[in-house]
Amino acid sequence: MPLLIKNGEIITADTRYKADILVQDETITQIGLDLEMDDEDLEVIDATGKYIFPGFIDPHVHIYLPFMATFAKDNHTTGSQAALIGGTTTFIEMCCPNRNDDHWEAYNLWKSRAEGNSACDFTFHMGISKFDDTVESQLKQIVEDGISSFKVFLSYKNFFGVEDGELYQVLTLAKKLGVIVTAHCENAELVAQLQQKLLAEGKTGPEYHEKSRPVQVEAEGTNRFATFVEMTGATGYIVHLSCQAALERAMAAKSKGVPLYIESVIPHFLLDKTFAEKPDFEGAKYVMSPPLRDKSNQKHLWAALEQGFIDTVGTDHCPFDVEQKDMGRGDFTKIPNGIPAIEDRVNLLYTYGVSRGNLDIHRFVDAASTKAAKLFGLFPRKGTIAVGSDADLVIYDPNYRGTISVKTQTVNNNYNGFEGWEIDGKPEVVTVRGQVQVRDGKFVGDASRGQFLRRKPSHF
Amino acid sequence: MPLLIKNGEIITADTRYKADILVQDETITQIGLDLEMDDEDLEVIDATGKYIFPGFIDPHVHIYLPFMATFAKDNHTTGSQAALIGGTTTFIEMCCPNRNDDHWEAYNLWKSRAEGNSACDFTFHMGISKFDDTVESQLKQIVEDGISSFKVFLSYKNFFGVEDGELYQVLTLAKKLGVIVTAHCENAELVAQLQQKLLAEGKTGPEYHEKSRPVQVEAEGTNRFATFVEMTGATGYIVHLSCQAALERAMAAKSKGVPLYIESVIPHFLLDKTFAEKPDFEGAKYVMSPPLRDKSNQKHLWAALEQGFIDTVGTDHCPFDVEQKDMGRGDFTKIPNGIPAIEDRVNLLYTYGVSRGNLDIHRFVDAASTKAAKLFGLFPRKGTIAVGSDADLVIYDPNYRGTISVKTQTVNNNYNGFEGWEIDGKPEVVTVRGQVQVRDGKFVGDASRGQFLRRKPSHF
Amino acid sequence: MPLLIKNGEIITADTRYKADILVQDETITQIGLDLEMDDEDLEVIDATGKYIFPGFIDPHVHIYLPFMATFAKDNHTTGSQAALIGGTTTFIEMCCPNRNDDHWEAYNLWKSRAEGNSACDFTFHMGISKFDDTVESQLKQIVEDGISSFKVFLSYKNFFGVEDGELYQVLTLAKKLGVIVTAHCENAELVAQLQQKLLAEGKTGPEYHEKSRPVQVEAEGTNRFATFVEMTGATGYIVHLSCQAALERAMAAKSKGVPLYIESVIPHFLLDKTFAEKPDFEGAKYVMSPPLRDKSNQKHLWAALEQGFIDTVGTDHCPFDVEQKDMGRGDFTKIPNGIPAIEDRVNLLYTYGVSRGNLDIHRFVDAASTKAAKLFGLFPRKGTIAVGSDADLVIYDPNYRGTISVKTQTVNNNYNGFEGWEIDGKPEVVTVRGQVQVRDGKFVGDASRGQFLRRKPSHF
Amino acid sequence: MPLLIKNGEIITADTRYKADILVQDETITQIGLDLEMDDEDLEVIDATGKYIFPGFIDPHVHIYLPFMATFAKDNHTTGSQAALIGGTTTFIEMCCPNRNDDHWEAYNLWKSRAEGNSACDFTFHMGISKFDDTVESQLKQIVEDGISSFKVFLSYKNFFGVEDGELYQVLTLAKKLGVIVTAHCENAELVAQLQQKLLAEGKTGPEYHEKSRPVQVEAEGTNRFATFVEMTGATGYIVHLSCQAALERAMAAKSKGVPLYIESVIPHFLLDKTFAEKPDFEGAKYVMSPPLRDKSNQKHLWAALEQGFIDTVGTDHCPFDVEQKDMGRGDFTKIPNGIPAIEDRVNLLYTYGVSRGNLDIHRFVDAASTKAAKLFGLFPRKGTIAVGSDADLVIYDPNYRGTISVKTQTVNNNYNGFEGWEIDGKPEVVTVRGQVQVRDGKFVGDASRGQFLRRKPSHF
Repeated sequence: MPLLIKNGEIITADTRYKADILVQDETITQIGLDLEMDDEDLEVIDATGKYIFPGFIDPHVHIYLPFMATFAKDNHTTGSQAALIGGTTTFIEMCCPNRNDDHWEAYNLWKSRAEGNSACDFTFHMGISKFDDTVESQLKQIVEDGISSFKVFLSYKNFFGVEDGELYQVLTLAKKLGVIVTAHCENAELVAQLQQKLLAEGKTGPEYHEKSRPVQVEAEGTNRFATFVEMTGATGYIVHLSCQAALERAMAAKSKGVPLYIESVIPHFLLDKTFAEKPDFEGAKYVMSPPLRDKSNQKHLWAALEQGFIDTVGTDHCPFDVEQKDMGRGDFTKIPNGIPAIEDRVNLLYTYGVSRGNLDIHRFVDAASTKAAKLFGLFPRKGTIAVGSDADLVIYDPNYRGTISVKTQTVNNNYNGFEGWEIDGKPEVVTVRGQVQVRDGKFVGDASRGQFLRRKPSHF
Repeated sequence: MPLLIKNGEIITADTRYKADILVQDETITQIGLDLEMDDEDLEVIDATGKYIFPGFIDPHVHIYLPFMATFAKDNHTTGSQAALIGGTTTFIEMCCPNRNDDHWEAYNLWKSRAEGNSACDFTFHMGISKFDDTVESQLKQIVEDGISSFKVFLSYKNFFGVEDGELYQVLTLAKKLGVIVTAHCENAELVAQLQQKLLAEGKTGPEYHEKSRPVQVEAEGTNRFATFVEMTGATGYIVHLSCQAALERAMAAKSKGVPLYIESVIPHFLLDKTFAEKPDFEGAKYVMSPPLRDKSNQKHLWAALEQGFIDTVGTDHCPFDVEQKDMGRGDFTKIPNGIPAIEDRVNLLYTYGVSRGNLDIHRFVDAASTKAAKLFGLFPRKGTIAVGSDADLVIYDPNYRGTISVKTQTVNNNYNGFEGWEIDGKPEVVTVRGQVQVRDGKFVGDASRGQFLRRKPSHF
Repeated sequence: MPLLIKNGEIITADTRYKADILVQDETITQIGLDLEMDDEDLEVIDATGKYIFPGFIDPHVHIYLPFMATFAKDNHTTGSQAALIGGTTTFIEMCCPNRNDDHWEAYNLWKSRAEGNSACDFTFHMGISKFDDTVESQLKQIVEDGISSFKVFLSYKNFFGVEDGELYQVLTLAKKLGVIVTAHCENAELVAQLQQKLLAEGKTGPEYHEKSRPVQVEAEGTNRFATFVEMTGATGYIVHLSCQAALERAMAAKSKGVPLYIESVIPHFLLDKTFAEKPDFEGAKYVMSPPLRDKSNQKHLWAALEQGFIDTVGTDHCPFDVEQKDMGRGDFTKIPNGIPAIEDRVNLLYTYGVSRGNLDIHRFVDAASTKAAKLFGLFPRKGTIAVGSDADLVIYDPNYRGTISVKTQTVNNNYNGFEGWEIDGKPEVVTVRGQVQVRDGKFVGDASRGQFLRRKPSHF
Repeated sequence: MPLLIKNGEIITADTRYKADILVQDETITQIGLDLEMDDEDLEVIDATGKYIFPGFIDPHVHIYLPFMATFAKDNHTTGSQAALIGGTTTFIEMCCPNRNDDHWEAYNLWKSRAEGNSACDFTFHMGISKFDDTVESQLKQIVEDGISSFKVFLSYKNFFGVEDGELYQVLTLAKKLGVIVTAHCENAELVAQLQQKLLAEGKTGPEYHEKSRPVQVEAEGTNRFATFVEMTGATGYIVHLSCQAALERAMAAKSKGVPLYIESVIPHFLLDKTFAEKPDFEGAKYVMSPPLRDKSNQKHLWAALEQGFIDTVGTDHCPFDVEQKDMGRGDFTKIPNGIPAIEDRVNLLYTYGVSRGNLDIHRFVDAASTKAAKLFGLFPRKGTIAVGSDADLVIYDPNYRGTISVKTQTVNNNYNGFEGWEIDGKPEVVTVRGQVQVRDGKFVGDASRGQFLRRKPSHF
């Protein structure tokens, strides 16, 4: 069924203009003035006064996540519909086998969870927690299957984490395969030792989480990862960079021409460590890693985002509810990490970046969609509004005014870390490959429309 | 006369896809698959196997330039046609009154030289070499007339240069008017003193030009300009940044969120100071300011360009011929400054950046066209390929192989600083607002088609 | 009259040991165990339990200072006795002609004020506020007379300040003469413009003083001065560096091997800008330039001092009383600048650096005495305890506990900026060339003992 | 037997003056003018025209060093006499147990090798290559025995090297005990992987040694060590820092006030990687780790040394002869590492730093003696010339001119890496605790005079 969107203002990472968009067979076939089409099945949407953004991409989410005999609260149904309502039409999920898991099995497990259950398109960063011949051949198979990005943890030693030797080998393989390697950059041993030290001193509350992984720990991991990327010639991508100290290390590498990209996540731009210091264990809601930081870091993150030094903005979406957070009462190291944000990322970034801040609207689109598409092999299928691209479109109402609340959210969780925050805009209509999945801000579409996106490596 | 370009691969700062482009009445009206139009006047161009870039913009050229009782060799006819043959469809010329000139008269003189004589579109950076109430009111008038960028020199004291107090006032006015201020950043007094010192020591050849304005001199100017931009809240743009030392100072400001942009020019990416050390006064051909630098700087410039730290690539085009250069025999300070490049910039950047280097093709388009359009109030009219934009299009043949030579150039000069350099691509067809001005690499169009582009300030 | 100091603990910039010191004819002639002398005139002082420091040197004071038809409150009698009571046995006074003054006359005027009136030894940094042939020949004469350090202001344009061209010439002359050039590093024009802007906005109180010369203004001046020092090959010395931003610029130069030294003054280590924000115009007492800064700078200054990155600690002593400060009511630019500290510098630095902080006691001696002696041509006559050196000795009681107060001060002023601050030590006996000038913390000596110290240039 | 040294010029880290020195019972008892003593045993040395330096200290040597079924060529007899002839009166030897060695046994083995066999005084840095309860209690015992410095390797994984967790524990223990931790900072895994990569590519010669541990590898180790020092609050000391990249990381830590000290060794100031590229396997003589670097690093090392950013200059003395070096033919990883320098360090540093360079003579004494004494608990017993200090004195002839050669060396090796280098000075007389051990540049003393120096921890 063809779709014609008329009179909207198209805004991409690059440009901005008023034109009509014609969609046929899932893709955009024409952009022009006063487009018409003679087809009785044609659906016409009038986007007068609205922005039309390319579908947003969240490059860093957790949906299926077993943790301490329980699971993060979202499944692909709730997570993908929440994403769409928030304007995100594609997400990249972390496939997270630990050191004891068979990586091929894990990959298939994760994929099977998503397939048939997602309302938006999806793919995975393939997590690697050990490296040997078996893993190497499995990784090649996984890349063959359409995965072109890996994920490593420098922290979480002996579980998710890789040692320096493994890191070198992962990067060397990635270079050979043209795959980009995303990395969680914190020093495993410093975190472990500081956690023990704090607990031994009776410092057990969520307010000590940040002290167990201070900025130095992240800066060290960032510097080490950047060095390994430089020495192997691979392409690197730092996930959820949270502070000026780490940023400074990443920028030093960028300035030398090292192909190193930076993601920060929406909580670090807006929330600071005082949230995790809220009394009565409410701080636990705000425990994530790297932790929320001193507020002084935020101006550096915003400046770096505006300048394009920070490439992308994701979420590290990971919903654990209040009861699950309670597992860490008396021991902050047992609080499940994560702040859900998949539904609110786009609106928050638009509101506090573009509408109320200094973020250029094109840089906003780039950081929340286009750059991730380019880095992760989805471009130009995703991430832009152009002839031939998938018709993932967000008709956005910049005149909407509202408030974020757990009461109205689709994410499956009993709190929202941004409760009460105002937003200055909202997706009105969201399409996935030409089909309207969200209308009037509500999910109205096909709950299993989402496709697994096969990607080709390009970072040679 | 409508124009339909079929089967090309459209490449912008953002995206890349195959589609047809329909142009009517100077602008792009449709982009789509298999476009057709029923109009007997329709011109159809088949761009199979070609790239289609948005018309390139040179943000820094000198065409009309009186100097020591002579003039730079190009006039708007030769300069604009050379530009078009090289893929540049818009240039921004420096209007350069000195301290003794009436600024309003200078502006009108420069504009009158261009109007009716240019084959491509044009506008000006308004040079300011003094500041008082008269100048202030003239500047407001000039902005009213459609100029939204100023130019100051921190060097060339008592002639083109401004003092710190004037700089502050220019920036304060610019902030108020929303105008961006471009700046030549070298310390006037250090240059003057070092020139005298070198001449007094009998060091008079062109090889001493660089020693009279070493990197420290530029880094100081860059740091000072960045400080004044920060203190006034204005938006700044550093022209022809040439070295790592200055880059480091500019990046420090960017990292703090200061709205400071960086231009480098094509000679600094490819030529180094050994060219200015060529014997028999041949070095004089390579005298420009800031001077060609030690080769070690080039890897920093390329890395910064690839990362987007350097925003734009211009030329500082300024053709003086061999006889004019000879005025400086025996005194390098009297060598007219400048290396012509308006015709070769795009091909050189494409060849040594994209084809043989690591420069992303989108970053290439951005640096050579789009970013300048955005910074200088020309976007989205110029700088992109989108419905509603001016049909300034470059149909580029990436399979062309050739060599740069004075023998085949259109620029009016009797040498070419890039003589013998290979190029890996070339504009085949170039349009200005829908009219074919270059075909098969030759100027075939209307020598006076160029329009003065009225621009609106946006840097508030 | 010979003097034998027994049983003290000698502490210099380098070493620490217990020994007796024998002084004859103004100098130290022996250091040893169990020294004896058979001379009926011998004075013996028992220093058991005391430290013996070399006499401290204040490298930056104003004593004679005409200002707006009035004068700073100290004369050489009060100033020198206050210095001695505080352990300072030599000071270097700023001789400050303005642009309209004859520099040779100024030099003689300043010298005549001091000669015969000072209880401690003294010399001058020769201020330079213009540069021409007359000044040049006068400076040579002044250097002949025993002055080996100059002073320039980058701020205070058209009065004390020098232009870039003059700065270059001063440094070039200094390099030739082997003279070190001290500099006040703030951008003159930015200060002037920001002052006007603030006053125009009705921001007239002392709390706006810091906003009229923010850290960027000092960092710019520091960077410019460092650049000029590097380009001329001269030796530079930054006076009263106050903040991290300027420190970072100075360190960049040091790291390149530029002979650039850094002085900070005691107020910047201990007081911050909130003092200048005290209500009811009390803030005026704390107006100095560069201004007191945000407290976050202090940890950087202390770290740099501990590491030796900051070379010396002076005072910029300059006493204006409450009535004089009142001249600036309604216009902070008219508040006479200065916080008196000549009497308290040593005790404050010892207390908050050594006794309660992390400052190594040898670094303390170095920063408050030895390094200044070395940089300014007084070493080893001054600045150490060694055979052959002047017997300027401070017998210091580290067990003293007391409080600073205007009530007990010798400085001629009706307030003390450190009122109520505790001190953990105090000079008990102070000698100047072997004569006891202070005993039991009180001046007991010869009010005119101080000599003009003729110095030889050494910075070639 | 008392000793009176007359008419010399005493030069310490701090001061410089002419005086006589009286030595009784191993220590200096008096310094004064025209000293006399009535004792028939008195030995009088006339030092007219000579400098008298405090005995130099080499903070980093290997004497006893088993390696691949062979040993470094010096024993304590040859090594200590070579040291003395070169002006070094105390050395600190690395006690290097590997991961399989009992640390207490190793300590006693190393000590037993030195005791009774050394002509100069000595102590040890206690190497730690694993950490568990046994090691911890042994380390406490070793500290009790008079060792106040540890040594860790971040490289040499699974042999000498420690893992991050062990590093944290070593530093934590050191902090508690007040012990300083010295560290070899290279990333173990990067070295191992790069070695394998190069060998696999057939790159087996000594010229590839540097490529297997490039500057990035050292910068990473330096940054990691600095981070661990900061996080534990311990005091750190980087051994043999070789390049600007690592220096920059160490300086970043110093600037934050982290108690981190830097040693560089004499080869890195004077030799560069082209030496290791000498043909016919001669390069093997110049294989050490970190490797000799690109010459561009040297100006940074010298500047940092002059400024005091580099604290000390040692040698990493480690003599393997040509036959031993030959073990690495065909595999550079098997070349025993080391360039002997214990005999030449002082003369080279004096010649190329002080006599022909810009190194202040006091900084020379500080870097080659005093600072090591202070950092490692030997001060003021060693490292200065003061009443009460050990009479370790070097009567140095600054007028000597000569050449370094294997033919005249005392070090037990069949090559000298500085063959043919000129020197501008030489120790004429060297005393150890008052006894003349070297006279006229020849060893004339007691071959077993050297004492084990018991030191007390001070870095709390």
